[in-house]
Amino acid sequence: MTSALLPAAANHPPHEPALLGQYRHVRAATEAMVADISDADATVQSMDDASPAKWHLAHTTWFFEEFVLAARIPDYEPVDPQYRYLFNSYYEAVGARHPRPRRGLLTRPSLDEILAYREAVDESMLSLLTDAQTDAEAALVTLGLNHEQQHQELLLTDILHLFAQNPLRPAYAPELTAPVIADPRPAPEWLKFSGGVVAIGHAGDDFAFDCETPRHNVLLQPYALSSHPVSNHQWFEFIEDGGYQTAGLWLSDGWRWVCDNAIQAPLYWEERDGTWWQMTLRGMQPVDADSPVTHVSFFEADAFARWAERRLPTEAEWEHAARNLPATGNFVEGRTLRPLPDRQNTSGALRQMFGDVWEWTASAFLPYPGFRPSAGAVGEYNGKFMSSQMVLRGGSCVTPESHIRASYRNFFYPHQRWQFTGVRLADDV
Amino acid sequence: MTSALLPAAANHPPHEPALLGQYRHVRAATEAMVADISDADATVQSMDDASPAKWHLAHTTWFFEEFVLAARIPDYEPVDPQYRYLFNSYYEAVGARHPRPRRGLLTRPSLDEILAYREAVDESMLSLLTDAQTDAEAALVTLGLNHEQQHQELLLTDILHLFAQNPLRPAYAPELTAPVIADPRPAPEWLKFSGGVVAIGHAGDDFAFDCETPRHNVLLQPYALSSHPVSNHQWFEFIEDGGYQTAGLWLSDGWRWVCDNAIQAPLYWEERDGTWWQMTLRGMQPVDADSPVTHVSFFEADAFARWAERRLPTEAEWEHAARNLPATGNFVEGRTLRPLPDRQNTSGALRQMFGDVWEWTASAFLPYPGFRPSAGAVGEYNGKFMSSQMVLRGGSCVTPESHIRASYRNFFYPHQRWQFTGVRLADDV
Amino acid sequence: MTSALLPAAANHPPHEPALLGQYRHVRAATEAMVADISDADATVQSMDDASPAKWHLAHTTWFFEEFVLAARIPDYEPVDPQYRYLFNSYYEAVGARHPRPRRGLLTRPSLDEILAYREAVDESMLSLLTDAQTDAEAALVTLGLNHEQQHQELLLTDILHLFAQNPLRPAYAPELTAPVIADPRPAPEWLKFSGGVVAIGHAGDDFAFDCETPRHNVLLQPYALSSHPVSNHQWFEFIEDGGYQTAGLWLSDGWRWVCDNAIQAPLYWEERDGTWWQMTLRGMQPVDADSPVTHVSFFEADAFARWAERRLPTEAEWEHAARNLPATGNFVEGRTLRPLPDRQNTSGALRQMFGDVWEWTASAFLPYPGFRPSAGAVGEYNGKFMSSQMVLRGGSCVTPESHIRASYRNFFYPHQRWQFTGVRLADDV
Amino acid sequence: MTSALLPAAANHPPHEPALLGQYRHVRAATEAMVADISDADATVQSMDDASPAKWHLAHTTWFFEEFVLAARIPDYEPVDPQYRYLFNSYYEAVGARHPRPRRGLLTRPSLDEILAYREAVDESMLSLLTDAQTDAEAALVTLGLNHEQQHQELLLTDILHLFAQNPLRPAYAPELTAPVIADPRPAPEWLKFSGGVVAIGHAGDDFAFDCETPRHNVLLQPYALSSHPVSNHQWFEFIEDGGYQTAGLWLSDGWRWVCDNAIQAPLYWEERDGTWWQMTLRGMQPVDADSPVTHVSFFEADAFARWAERRLPTEAEWEHAARNLPATGNFVEGRTLRPLPDRQNTSGALRQMFGDVWEWTASAFLPYPGFRPSAGAVGEYNGKFMSSQMVLRGGSCVTPESHIRASYRNFFYPHQRWQFTGVRLADDV
Repeated sequence: MTSALLPAAANHPPHEPALLGQYRHVRAATEAMVADISDADATVQSMDDASPAKWHLAHTTWFFEEFVLAARIPDYEPVDPQYRYLFNSYYEAVGARHPRPRRGLLTRPSLDEILAYREAVDESMLSLLTDAQTDAEAALVTLGLNHEQQHQELLLTDILHLFAQNPLRPAYAPELTAPVIADPRPAPEWLKFSGGVVAIGHAGDDFAFDCETPRHNVLLQPYALSSHPVSNHQWFEFIEDGGYQTAGLWLSDGWRWVCDNAIQAPLYWEERDGTWWQMTLRGMQPVDADSPVTHVSFFEADAFARWAERRLPTEAEWEHAARNLPATGNFVEGRTLRPLPDRQNTSGALRQMFGDVWEWTASAFLPYPGFRPSAGAVGEYNGKFMSSQMVLRGGSCVTPESHIRASYRNFFYPHQRWQFTGVRLADDV
Repeated sequence: MTSALLPAAANHPPHEPALLGQYRHVRAATEAMVADISDADATVQSMDDASPAKWHLAHTTWFFEEFVLAARIPDYEPVDPQYRYLFNSYYEAVGARHPRPRRGLLTRPSLDEILAYREAVDESMLSLLTDAQTDAEAALVTLGLNHEQQHQELLLTDILHLFAQNPLRPAYAPELTAPVIADPRPAPEWLKFSGGVVAIGHAGDDFAFDCETPRHNVLLQPYALSSHPVSNHQWFEFIEDGGYQTAGLWLSDGWRWVCDNAIQAPLYWEERDGTWWQMTLRGMQPVDADSPVTHVSFFEADAFARWAERRLPTEAEWEHAARNLPATGNFVEGRTLRPLPDRQNTSGALRQMFGDVWEWTASAFLPYPGFRPSAGAVGEYNGKFMSSQMVLRGGSCVTPESHIRASYRNFFYPHQRWQFTGVRLADDV
Repeated sequence: MTSALLPAAANHPPHEPALLGQYRHVRAATEAMVADISDADATVQSMDDASPAKWHLAHTTWFFEEFVLAARIPDYEPVDPQYRYLFNSYYEAVGARHPRPRRGLLTRPSLDEILAYREAVDESMLSLLTDAQTDAEAALVTLGLNHEQQHQELLLTDILHLFAQNPLRPAYAPELTAPVIADPRPAPEWLKFSGGVVAIGHAGDDFAFDCETPRHNVLLQPYALSSHPVSNHQWFEFIEDGGYQTAGLWLSDGWRWVCDNAIQAPLYWEERDGTWWQMTLRGMQPVDADSPVTHVSFFEADAFARWAERRLPTEAEWEHAARNLPATGNFVEGRTLRPLPDRQNTSGALRQMFGDVWEWTASAFLPYPGFRPSAGAVGEYNGKFMSSQMVLRGGSCVTPESHIRASYRNFFYPHQRWQFTGVRLADDV
Repeated sequence: MTSALLPAAANHPPHEPALLGQYRHVRAATEAMVADISDADATVQSMDDASPAKWHLAHTTWFFEEFVLAARIPDYEPVDPQYRYLFNSYYEAVGARHPRPRRGLLTRPSLDEILAYREAVDESMLSLLTDAQTDAEAALVTLGLNHEQQHQELLLTDILHLFAQNPLRPAYAPELTAPVIADPRPAPEWLKFSGGVVAIGHAGDDFAFDCETPRHNVLLQPYALSSHPVSNHQWFEFIEDGGYQTAGLWLSDGWRWVCDNAIQAPLYWEERDGTWWQMTLRGMQPVDADSPVTHVSFFEADAFARWAERRLPTEAEWEHAARNLPATGNFVEGRTLRPLPDRQNTSGALRQMFGDVWEWTASAFLPYPGFRPSAGAVGEYNGKFMSSQMVLRGGSCVTPESHIRASYRNFFYPHQRWQFTGVRLADDV
């Protein structure tokens, strides 16, 4: 993907405060993502789970206005008082909000007006960031930037979903280079881990979301992980073997989901004259057999693992592996298993951009032992979502680079698959 | 409303064929309606019953391309083959079509591309219309123009509905002059008609929709009609008297509709600090007591009539009255009761533009005796809708002038009210 | 059907008041209908449109208790005060009521308790009916009896619907004699009527429902009616000719109904090894080619007529024909076209009990000119339903004999077909 | 509750094989539960989540017929071939099945016929059990009996739900003695556990469900548990403090559930004149302040814990505590914390029958490390349900005694609350 979508880390001028530089960088990255879409593209909501691009642009801005500017500046005058209502998401403590499924009805404010809103807030923020901040305020700004980066990924997956609904199948970024697999991929190997009491979770001063803490010990049995994510080629075999028609492979809720929605392949796959095609950010493309499968639900990931007579890893297994590769020599020139967050070594210079996926784990999204949400409205952050969702680990081709870390916990409902979601198999040893 | 919305009849150059002039005029009127809205405004679908402005623009164009150009020109090359699928509405005979509730997902083609599509089709059409036509072809073009005029009205009501969903309540046409009531309106009078065997339905060579024919005799009992449509002031009384809480006033389906949807006032009315406001094409406005009530459903119209101890007129009563005002002197300087289509005399020079309403009748939309739909795809025209809808008569403030005629049959489901719909009471004599 | 289901007219002892005899007769007929079903059969509600048999038994009793006993007897003690709430149907004026879709949750009171409730109310009613009544009271009792007869028919159609949901397909009345067609039926003939100004609607002192009045004149064009209802044989042809797959034959709402519900045949038809079977009150039976088609919706009736290049009759045409057979000799030894209510001559001595059908008309169920509902709660009677329903005429194999009359207006929504509904074609002349 | 509902352990004659005695005992217990309900009570399905009593009776019988008799007896003739279809639940491997939401439409077979079906299968089973069994067959029979005991509990909770829908609020077992709290309950104490690596899960030869295995080690942080489940009195405080109106206390999905369903109190609570009443198996009863709260969802349990500034225990914490009470003297004369399965010591001689509850844990229902489902159709047993459900521990007042064990994992969706579900608080130490 072009650097406009996933800009490299900011190189801010040495005289500028670091946070200010990060702010500029993240904000610019968001705006670059909408440089080539129309007001209409940025307005429509293609399903309840998705949001309009305009909403992502405005809501991330509202976060800074509400939690930083309004808190810091006495008698702060909001850029537009109505935006407080329109662009609140789920922060119940802040007040009433526009209902989520109706976000797509807001043809006004226009994209240009939203960009002007961003500019106005940026101006205040940049002025504020030029001065010294309290630690608490700096933490809030950092949270806001990480929050915005989460929305960057959603903005792209939501645009893809929107364009996939259009019979014209427009391309979001036609100039993107197709993924090229330089060398034939070797057969997956099984990397073994001896388990024991291991520590997982975030520690240290770097930013992490509340749900990544506290760092704590867990007891793991010995286990093995596949060196590669499951490929489209493997998925073809699953389909051909009747995977989508074999009730016994599926969880009960999963089987109902398959039947009710006539699921027969990953999201965005279409069979045309015996060949599988896939809607992508580059428009319709043939499904590449060597790329990791993507846009599969937890239900599909779980059924695939059962079909393969393996299982999904737990999030603790995944994180432990990501931090501690086996000392044996079976290191695979892949990418995700490299010690994170050293992504460059693992991603093959962005060659696998459309195949680099969030990996479903066998773990429900639940609080870590000793977890306490932050106080106040921002405390509603991630803890609110700790029911009925499953954890995904690793990051995808549209995940901002600074979100690629071993402790990062992404989470979605088991039927959702409009994110770039894939599978890596695990097994007992 | 400005002339851009409701242009006066075309004055085409004398050397130009009449049909060509009408074509230019109608097409330009549609385009004028979207001169001030954005691509996003023209894209979003605010409910299943409504369509995006862009869709209205394209579908009316598709009609000419499909039924005129493709039929006449050998090996006609469509402007874009995919538009045939995207902009078909309900013409099953023509082939598959984009599902109605998904019209709002089409952010592409853009408004500009749709306008270019119109221009391309217009070019072919204008060339075609410069030559002589067969009667059949001329009839098709005339049908297409009347079809487009129907969509002009829908375009405006759909935009109003869209803007009413937006908490910002944007104005479509803020510069429109508010209705001014020059003189206090006299109390409504009852105009009496003696009934008997009367003819209704369209006759003659002028254009009429299929459902307006054949002209036929019906037998009417003596009846009376109110000189005025029901006013907002009368509706206040209905509300204050508990009309919306009195089950006995409502049809069974209507009462369920009231309860399920918590209906308490006409659509677009909002109470703010004890005053009723109303969303209009000019934005939010106080409800004017002297204007005709509008945006009421058949259920509300029927309940109001029962509350007033009157009834709604049948469509035959309405049409007979519109054609034959009583010879007695109780003629009221109103507008709708003037012999149509002489609208100028009746409409007070457009002073009541926002209060001029379609009037619900007590008649279901059913075929007239001897009705036969036209052959072929265009024969699906109006006859397809002859179940469960009620007839409305008269025309509203956004009805194109040439659609104002005594025989015109508009029709909607009894719960629908996003059109400019109102009430005129009738009674037995 | 056995006499238990459709008892002949009552022969009450000469010394007994006529109304008392009718009361005994109607009440006994209802109870005979549930003689062979279980408490469970009488409890379950198979869809929102249907009601449990127990509810029919209790609601018809509630009518007498609420409108007759409680009105007449000072300080009347209800048999059970809670029944007032449980068994009110739609009489909003009487007070709150148990929600219709939850009628099937009432496993208590049991069928025996409901029968005891009937007995208790009957005792008071019979005592009351032994004395003289005011005309108003007698009219109320007569209304209650006719109301109960309406529910007799519903009770049977609702039981049939319930049993049709059960994979065991139990028979309600297995001993019923199958219809036998003694002689090959002659091809349908077309009976012509010259139209003109004719009177329809009920007149006279006999009982009729409010919606059958007032009698009034209508103007009919010349028309023709088929001598026979449409047969299953004709329906086979419609199916084989692709009737259910041809969009152009259907009203717009009808086509959506066909597609959404995958409609391919009349309700209760099942194809097994190339043969059509039909669930009936006698259990599963092969579809008899010579019997009138039944369990079709208005949408199907209308599409069939369009396929046959005919149309449905209006209710005025139907009623006029039923009252005035043509003087010419083309009288067909059928059944429905005989002057009603002389049913014996027309029905072939009950031989066609399962094939004798309500005939859909082309008329919406709307008030007759001058219609005024009765005052008070019973005034909610039929007028409440005058929207979006279509009129059926004639009566079915499970219609009580005294409901067979020329002016009777039955009504259902255009998609409903669990009643014994059929088709008779009409045509212009 | 009477012994008919929860019979004591079987005392089978010494000469009878143990399994045969257990079979007799469990089967008789199920039948005793329906001794006083009607055919109708046993037929109706009050919501999709519940099943009719008749269905429970038949499905548990089908299990023995399908998995034991048909597997063992050559050319086994089923009692009724249609029952195979009607009473399969979710065993996809066995074949098609009657759709779950339509179970309540089966008025036939009657309750008596179902009891006769049970008798016929029992006859074959008792004959089979008189002989020696293979271990595999004995294991299947034991599974079948435990399966039937699960349905015993469901049968009672489903009956309660059905009766709660009836405005008459019938009592299932009016003669049950009300719970009596002999002594004022002491304030809850906090029992501390030091954590560490502990073993959980089932081990040994006794029966356990697949999901309780394998036994494995987990690492626990030090924690504390409340000596008592949360009482109704504590719940009153939660309500009065606005717990149901405070968004910040709820998970995001929970808050939507509260808003969408207008949740204001536990299921079956009704406020009448300022007093809380509760529908129970004994009919409507005042809510007893000293009893454990019951019929709360996971969402409510979680919100309550947050309000109380505590948390829910994990299932490992719960099980570890149930197995290892603290050595300190703060043992409370309660019931659940006694070493299980010694229930007699803990339950106060049935005094708390209506207050003895399943306790929601903070753990999602997921496979234990190394879990493998059994092969074949019975292998679909519990593993199918491992998504989006939360684990409950302990057992309720209607749980068969032999299901009360430390390793038992019950599971329901976070919004469900028609089981006897309650809350015990935990905390970090």
